[in-house]
Amino acid sequence: MKSLLIGGEWRQAQNPAGAFRAINPATGEAGDDVYPISSTADVEAALDAAHGSIPGLIKTPPESLADFLDLFASKILERNEELVETAHRETALPEEPRLRLTELPRTTDQLHQAASAVRDRSWCRATIDTRLNIRSKYGALGGPVAVFGPNNFPFAFNSAGGGDFAAAIAAGNPVIAKANPGHPGTTRIFAEIAHAGLIKCGLPPATVQLIYHLRPEDGFKLVSHPRLGATAFTGSRPAGLRLKQAADLGGRPIYLEMSSVNPIFILPGAAKEKTEKIASELFHSCEMSAGQFCTKPGLVVVLRDESGEAFIESARRNFRPSPSGFLLGPNALEGIKKTLEIMTRSGAEILTGGIPLEGPGFRFANTLLRVSGDAFIKKAEDMQREAFGPVSLVVSARDVEQLLDIAKALDGTLTVSVYASGADDALYARLEPILRFKAGRLLNDKMPTGVAVTPAMVHGGPFPATGHPGFTSVGIPGSMLRFTALHGYDNVRQDRLPPELRDKNPTGSMWRLIDGSWTQKDI
Amino acid sequence: MKSLLIGGEWRQAQNPAGAFRAINPATGEAGDDVYPISSTADVEAALDAAHGSIPGLIKTPPESLADFLDLFASKILERNEELVETAHRETALPEEPRLRLTELPRTTDQLHQAASAVRDRSWCRATIDTRLNIRSKYGALGGPVAVFGPNNFPFAFNSAGGGDFAAAIAAGNPVIAKANPGHPGTTRIFAEIAHAGLIKCGLPPATVQLIYHLRPEDGFKLVSHPRLGATAFTGSRPAGLRLKQAADLGGRPIYLEMSSVNPIFILPGAAKEKTEKIASELFHSCEMSAGQFCTKPGLVVVLRDESGEAFIESARRNFRPSPSGFLLGPNALEGIKKTLEIMTRSGAEILTGGIPLEGPGFRFANTLLRVSGDAFIKKAEDMQREAFGPVSLVVSARDVEQLLDIAKALDGTLTVSVYASGADDALYARLEPILRFKAGRLLNDKMPTGVAVTPAMVHGGPFPATGHPGFTSVGIPGSMLRFTALHGYDNVRQDRLPPELRDKNPTGSMWRLIDGSWTQKDI
Repeated sequence: MKSLLIGGEWRQAQNPAGAFRAINPATGEAGDDVYPISSTADVEAALDAAHGSIPGLIKTPPESLADFLDLFASKILERNEELVETAHRETALPEEPRLRLTELPRTTDQLHQAASAVRDRSWCRATIDTRLNIRSKYGALGGPVAVFGPNNFPFAFNSAGGGDFAAAIAAGNPVIAKANPGHPGTTRIFAEIAHAGLIKCGLPPATVQLIYHLRPEDGFKLVSHPRLGATAFTGSRPAGLRLKQAADLGGRPIYLEMSSVNPIFILPGAAKEKTEKIASELFHSCEMSAGQFCTKPGLVVVLRDESGEAFIESARRNFRPSPSGFLLGPNALEGIKKTLEIMTRSGAEILTGGIPLEGPGFRFANTLLRVSGDAFIKKAEDMQREAFGPVSLVVSARDVEQLLDIAKALDGTLTVSVYASGADDALYARLEPILRFKAGRLLNDKMPTGVAVTPAMVHGGPFPATGHPGFTSVGIPGSMLRFTALHGYDNVRQDRLPPELRDKNPTGSMWRLIDGSWTQKDI
Repeated sequence: MKSLLIGGEWRQAQNPAGAFRAINPATGEAGDDVYPISSTADVEAALDAAHGSIPGLIKTPPESLADFLDLFASKILERNEELVETAHRETALPEEPRLRLTELPRTTDQLHQAASAVRDRSWCRATIDTRLNIRSKYGALGGPVAVFGPNNFPFAFNSAGGGDFAAAIAAGNPVIAKANPGHPGTTRIFAEIAHAGLIKCGLPPATVQLIYHLRPEDGFKLVSHPRLGATAFTGSRPAGLRLKQAADLGGRPIYLEMSSVNPIFILPGAAKEKTEKIASELFHSCEMSAGQFCTKPGLVVVLRDESGEAFIESARRNFRPSPSGFLLGPNALEGIKKTLEIMTRSGAEILTGGIPLEGPGFRFANTLLRVSGDAFIKKAEDMQREAFGPVSLVVSARDVEQLLDIAKALDGTLTVSVYASGADDALYARLEPILRFKAGRLLNDKMPTGVAVTPAMVHGGPFPATGHPGFTSVGIPGSMLRFTALHGYDNVRQDRLPPELRDKNPTGSMWRLIDGSWTQKDI
């Protein structure tokens, strides 16, 4: 059985609760490697070791932490062929362009951005009141961050090397990576690279630990543990809600991304002017990676008029060709089938697709559905279930008032896009104040897939898309703030303050809010 | 029965679940006025009206919102005699200096600071990536904030005019004030002033609403309601934990302050050099307002050596004189008695006090206890119960190692203070990394009572002192961030962006983070 990384050592699971193999979604066959399902003993050992690493992490100079992140990124590139081959086998995501040319560079770029943020130090938002000698900044949590990565981004959201990992480490926390059981081998390679990098850079070896799988009850134990700092989870809504409940009861912060339908509103002017263009953009946004993006547009709202009908017809033509790519596993197939059943039972009509494709592997036909605005509003919850695959539902609104009612009936979601021409200005002005509170990111004339890693990015949103509307999981340094506590210092002597809060600016270029003004100067 | 403020109108409760009167803690007698305990109907009506106010609030220029906050503050001053007299009757807190000279000016100052933050606009942390045209800022929640104020600050944390109120309104949210049932008359006056101010400034009248009391089940309904934006609660831990559970299950953010013991570590050098001074500071910090501050030092840790014993003896002499001030009600008396029972059963010894004082009203003798480090560590949870009154527990640590173990056994708390002389530097260096993760605010050579309203203040801390370690409830604009969502704009046209995110700086002085630099300039 494959070993875990606990306390800086590769060791066998203690009293494992079971074992599993990764499934190749392109063939449905299990891989050769056997991975343990951990039990409480491994969770406790990881928590102990993580706490053992904290005194060392506190003393680690930011430069060493940044060096580690940069080194990690460069060593990932050195093993890039092995990573791409392994991830392709475990996820069936295309090697090119997806894994090799898109996701891997994005992953190393995130790590380099995190390294820059650590060196720059402005992320901690040092705030100083010189008159009262009261100072504050964001700092590490004092406990490890458990990262539960999703199945759909084996690199960029990998629990041992993706965005949550980078943010948690950059904020000074140890990480307990809980691999996604869909790609344990990929995650193991990341952990190997990280482990070697920690030793090379002189960081505490237990800064990064790896567990492959947990029974649900042990997952609840981990996320609610009094010694845990926080949890990051990206995955399904049912699993996320159960973890949230456990973490909340234990008083442990948990940041969740729990599925999202990412509605697209196509206002009549735009529908008329750009029918074909928008229909084609919609299809590509839905079909990319077989629709398995958290930002896939799963809902499209148009008016039931001539241009709306023309749009639906154009979209239907776009969706018709199959096969699409592979789904990430048999659960995905079952999930889509169940969602389509619920939608059609509640009044949606399948325009194209709607069936699984013949094997080997797990594939589903590109699927477009339509439903009337009346039926949508009547069963708004059913109609907003996420179908995690190449599926989208078009809602045809009776009139402008109903289109606004549909907007009002939306649940919290990660993104919402509005396509509008100049002729749509008046309607946009009525729609925007409703949509603004439904999503983290509001887009104009653009599909939501493609989440740029920039400080201004918001990849978050109101419940139930996430667990808290005030955070983003993409965009450095913003994403780091999830894994911090606010640390105040009142009347603390200069030599006892962290360097970021002393009178002298520690880098000469760090931004600090001193007596109400942002400045790079010393006091 | 006194009327509620719902939807901009003073109206009778619908199907009230009961009625209550405020008790004067100095006499134990009930007041003349009868207030309703609201039922679900009032909660639903308030939520409806609050949502009705949101379109108007969105359109309100920041200048008008700021004018309202300033006007509110000035009108509070005009009714200051009535407020002081009513609050004194309802809480028995001294008219002077406490209510008239300390708390009221602090309250109006908070409102003026909130007004300045609204005018300045920098609070929203506008972040712009000019190359990708991706922009973000913090914005209102899109639902009302329910404010549950505590009994111990009838002005500064009043649900209809205190710090949480000011922060929620300044961030652009309507407020549903749930009065503390200890001071409904005081809260009513605040709501009257706010109501008149809203009308004068042209703000939606349902921006501020008032309910006096709720059955627990209706409180849970309110904080977990899908249409609620967030909750702010300051009060007891049992009530806070129950509200937290309800809010968490509903996916609604809740910010809680749920009691804190605020440990004081007196290192041997300081204990020796400043025995009398620190003992006197401790007593005054514990005795002020009868020990009913969230930052009252309820735990003191010293070494069991000559200077430690001298300190305990000096503290005992300081605590001996009674009577102290009035407690806020009969529950407070019962709470202290119960806590002392638990502490003494677990090995603490009462050095002075320990008994309620004769009536009229509710008073408890100034009380100092001591316990050995061994007993503390054995029963760390019992020893960290908050006794909300003039009570403090001194822990006498066998040696330096045990003192560090005591630090490790601490629960999350709002503040922790360390008194240390130059001779204590080595011990401070070992102690600080432990304490840093236990509290929001770390103080040197200073008692924690007295929470300055400055942007650098941290009045927060790890669970169970609060519900989340990353926020502060005091300090503007930081406290506003609790009541915001992160709003991203991707490819949105200039004229559709909020003014804070357009190329032109809306005030000419607002701070924005543009392409990685904080600046007041236009793009």
